[in-house]
Amino acid sequence: MYRADEGIGFLLRYENIAWYENGAVRILDRRIYPVKIEYVTCTKHQEVAKAIKDMVTQSGGPYTAAAMGMALAAYEARDLDDGKYLAYMNEAAYTLSHARPTTVKKMEGVTKRSLKRLAAELEKGTSRNDMPEKLFEEGIARLNETYENYDRVAHYLADKIPHNGTIMTQCFAETIIGTLMRECRKRGNEVKVICPETRPYYQGARLTASVISDMGFDTTVITDNMPAYVMKQKNVDLFTSAADVITMDGYVVNKIGTFQIALAAHYWGIPYFTTGSPNPGHPDISSVEIELRDPELVLESMGFKHTSDKVKGYYPAFDITPPKFVDGIVTSKGIYSPYNLKAYFEGE
Amino acid sequence: MYRADEGIGFLLRYENIAWYENGAVRILDRRIYPVKIEYVTCTKHQEVAKAIKDMVTQSGGPYTAAAMGMALAAYEARDLDDGKYLAYMNEAAYTLSHARPTTVKKMEGVTKRSLKRLAAELEKGTSRNDMPEKLFEEGIARLNETYENYDRVAHYLADKIPHNGTIMTQCFAETIIGTLMRECRKRGNEVKVICPETRPYYQGARLTASVISDMGFDTTVITDNMPAYVMKQKNVDLFTSAADVITMDGYVVNKIGTFQIALAAHYWGIPYFTTGSPNPGHPDISSVEIELRDPELVLESMGFKHTSDKVKGYYPAFDITPPKFVDGIVTSKGIYSPYNLKAYFEGE
Repeated sequence: MYRADEGIGFLLRYENIAWYENGAVRILDRRIYPVKIEYVTCTKHQEVAKAIKDMVTQSGGPYTAAAMGMALAAYEARDLDDGKYLAYMNEAAYTLSHARPTTVKKMEGVTKRSLKRLAAELEKGTSRNDMPEKLFEEGIARLNETYENYDRVAHYLADKIPHNGTIMTQCFAETIIGTLMRECRKRGNEVKVICPETRPYYQGARLTASVISDMGFDTTVITDNMPAYVMKQKNVDLFTSAADVITMDGYVVNKIGTFQIALAAHYWGIPYFTTGSPNPGHPDISSVEIELRDPELVLESMGFKHTSDKVKGYYPAFDITPPKFVDGIVTSKGIYSPYNLKAYFEGE
Repeated sequence: MYRADEGIGFLLRYENIAWYENGAVRILDRRIYPVKIEYVTCTKHQEVAKAIKDMVTQSGGPYTAAAMGMALAAYEARDLDDGKYLAYMNEAAYTLSHARPTTVKKMEGVTKRSLKRLAAELEKGTSRNDMPEKLFEEGIARLNETYENYDRVAHYLADKIPHNGTIMTQCFAETIIGTLMRECRKRGNEVKVICPETRPYYQGARLTASVISDMGFDTTVITDNMPAYVMKQKNVDLFTSAADVITMDGYVVNKIGTFQIALAAHYWGIPYFTTGSPNPGHPDISSVEIELRDPELVLESMGFKHTSDKVKGYYPAFDITPPKFVDGIVTSKGIYSPYNLKAYFEGE
C-alpha cells in the first residue's frame, strides 16, 4: 500500500517515522538520530501528542504522527458505547492537533481528514475493529499525496537552481529536501548544500545534512552564527526552507533562524524560496502563535550544561519572515508571490 | 603592582588568565570555563603560541598571554650568547604575534612593546636573570592601561544605554563587558543582557553570560539562530561587541556571527556600537586575513559528534561587518564614525 517506487528508500528511512500497528504507534526519535536509531512507542493517542510536543518527531513528521494517532485512538475506542465513540474520536483529534500551538491549523487539516474518513466508514457499516486499519490507510494515503506534492514542488524549485550550484537550507526541510535532491540528480545537477546546524536540537546537522550526504551530494555543516558570512564566501545561489505556516498575507513562519538567514540572503541578493502552501486558516500573521519551548534547552547541548546557574534561557521555536524577504512560495502548482497568495486558490 | 581597586575582582577572575612566574606561563583554559576551572601550563614560549592558536584563551586573553610569553622567552634565553640573545627574543616575538592570522597586527603591538622594554633594560644594564620579571612588569603595565581604557570606553558606551534597558552582546566582549556592567551599576542602571551562545565554543554562554550573571544582572542566553527575532521580541535597545580588528576604512572584524546580528539590528533600527580602536596597520579590509579553523569543530559539540561521517564542516573564526551597519566605534577618546576613523588619531 505504501508507495515504494525507485529512490523512495530515503523517504522511508527518514520520514516513515510514525507507524500504527497492533494498538501502538512507533515513532523514530529524531532528537537523537543519526547518532542513535531509537523509537518511541505510544500505546495511547495522548502519548503521541506528547511525543509531538517533545519533538520526538518534527518538520513533516507530526502530521503523519497525528494521522497514526487517530488510528490508535480508534483502537482505544473500539469497545466504547455508540454515544461515547464519536466524542472520544473528536477529543483525540483535538488533543493531537493542539500538541504544539504554532501548527494547530495545519494539524487540524490532518485530524479532520481522519474524522471524515471515520464518518464515511461508519456510514458504510465498517466494524469498529476494522477502523484502526482504515484510519491507518487514510494516513498513508495522505502521506502519498504529500510525496506527490513534493515531487511537483521539487520540480519547480529545481528549475531555480543553477547547474552544479550551491544552495543553503535551514533545519530539516523534511523529505522535500530529499525529493529536491533526487530531482537535481535526475537532471544531472550535482548541487552542493550548506546546512546551518540548527541549535538547540541540531536538526540541520543531524537530519538535513545526513539525508543529503547519504545521497552522495557535497554537504557542509556550519554553525548558526555563520550563514550571513558563509553564503557570500561560498557563493550560495539560493536559500530555501520549508515552512510551518505560510499566512495569506505572505509571512513565513519557520524554524527559528530562518528570518535572519533570509535577511542576509536579501542583503547579498540571493533569492529565498519557501516550500509549502498558504493556509487560509491564517488570513494574516496576527493569527499565528509562536511556540515558546522550555528555556533550559538552550542552556545545554546534548544534555551538557554550558553556562552559570543564574543565567536564564529563552527559546522561541519559530520566527517570522516578512514577505519582503521571500522571493517565492514554491507550491505543487508552481511558484507564487508572497504578495498574491490568493492566486494559489484561484481555479480550484 | 596589579591594579586591585574596588570591583576589579571580576577582572582578575576572568581575564587575569595568563601569568608568568618562575619559568612558566599559566593560562586559564577558557574552552571549558566555567564548567571546569583548569589551567594550561607552558614552559616554552612556543607552547604559549600554541595555546593561543588552540583557543585556550581568546578575546583579550591572547594579548596578555603574548606579553607573558615574552617574559618566558627571556627566561629561556637567559644563558644564550650575546649574539643569539636578541635574535631569540625577536623570533619569540614573531612566533607569539603570528599565532593566529587575523590578529597579527594587534599582537605585534604587544610583542614590539616587550622588545622595546627589553632594549631599554639592556641599555640600563639590567641583568638577563632579571629580564623575565621586567617583561612581566611590562605585560602588567599594558594590562593596567588596557583596563583604564576600558573604563573610559565603558563611560562612553554606558551613555548610550537607556535606563534599565536591554542590550545584546556577542561572544566574550572581554573585560569590557564587565567594565561596562560595573559602570551601569554605578549609574543605577540595571541593564538586562541577552547573550547569543556563540558556537562552536559557546563563549557567549560560558564566558559572557557567566560574567554578567555573576555580577547580579538579568542575563539571558539564546542560541545563535535567534538574535534577529529575539532582539525585536525582547525590545533590545542596543547591540554591542568588541572587535578583533577595526580597519581604517571602518570595517569591523569580530567573532563569527557579529555581522548577521548587526544586519538584523540595522533592519530593526537598533544601534550597533563596537568597542575598540582603529588599527593603522590595516588601512583597509583587504589587508585582513580571516582565520579558518579546524572544520571538524563545527561537527561536534563538547566533543560529541552530531552528523554523518560524509558531512564536511567549514569554520571561519571571524566575519566582517561593513561600516554601513556600525553606528559607532566606542574608543577611550569617545565615539567615532566608522566613516571617519582618521579623526581618532588627530591631535595625538
